[in-house]
Amino acid sequence: MKQTKKIQRILGIDPGFGRVGYGIIEGSGSQWTHVTHGCIETAKENSFVDRLVEVQTDLQTIIDMYQPSIACVEELFFLKNVTTGMNVSHARGVILLTLHQAGIDIHEATPLEIKQAITGYGQAHKEQVQYMVAKLLKLPETRLQDDAADALGAALYVSGQLAYIQKTTK
Amino acid sequence: MKQTKKIQRILGIDPGFGRVGYGIIEGSGSQWTHVTHGCIETAKENSFVDRLVEVQTDLQTIIDMYQPSIACVEELFFLKNVTTGMNVSHARGVILLTLHQAGIDIHEATPLEIKQAITGYGQAHKEQVQYMVAKLLKLPETRLQDDAADALGAALYVSGQLAYIQKTTK
Repeated sequence: MKQTKKIQRILGIDPGFGRVGYGIIEGSGSQWTHVTHGCIETAKENSFVDRLVEVQTDLQTIIDMYQPSIACVEELFFLKNVTTGMNVSHARGVILLTLHQAGIDIHEATPLEIKQAITGYGQAHKEQVQYMVAKLLKLPETRLQDDAADALGAALYVSGQLAYIQKTTK
Repeated sequence: MKQTKKIQRILGIDPGFGRVGYGIIEGSGSQWTHVTHGCIETAKENSFVDRLVEVQTDLQTIIDMYQPSIACVEELFFLKNVTTGMNVSHARGVILLTLHQAGIDIHEATPLEIKQAITGYGQAHKEQVQYMVAKLLKLPETRLQDDAADALGAALYVSGQLAYIQKTTK
């Protein structure tokens, strides 16, 4: 069965407490282009709750502005610093709830799954991810920060899955 | 300056991912009575995001029903199990955001601060907290579960602070 390809926007998120990376791509099948990317930063001088609210407010602004229908939020992998892991988990809870309240289809993926999909190697270095994300989206690679590269990588990961699903259901 | 004492409702919360304890008290100054207590439970068979949404939905129902103006959310203290700590932190982020969105004045307190305030001893056992919470609120102590006792303890902790502030501003 041949389907009309629907253009979709995917919001990838690299969760954090002080910095939340985001990246948006647009397309269908195996054709995806870069829309935007950036980083939500929360003010260190603000209270814990206020910083969580900043994450929510800024994410909501991005959602309102770009209207993504799908999101992919990277899963957390912390062993060294429990406090950081717990702070980021608070923010990640807020992120997931905000996406849900906006009616966005939420996906999750581990850093390993994303690296594997983008570079072909689950233990790839940051630079390799940055290089491949920039190459796949035809971006000048030198400008891509870690957070944004990981966020765009998460979005591309889901786009890859979408392309696969569309291919197998044709 | 003599102030008219305003009756307030305080919602205490013992955060969790599978179980969120809550307890509500009502009063002013040093006179506080029990309104309700219970536990939000999330279904193990549901997805991670759906369980976070359950926390939000059930908490919102409690807020709508009892209209608290103040909340006290216990801080987390995990060292043994990082995964549990991270799951609970996701839920705690959702709880803090839900309270903020409802316009509730949010307080936080460590288990040590709450135990110290309720029993006079920061390292008190669960049974001592249960006993004192029940005694302070004139409840049949045998019926109080851990989560609910801790949640009511958090609410009483803030009520104690309120009484102190009201006393010193008279």
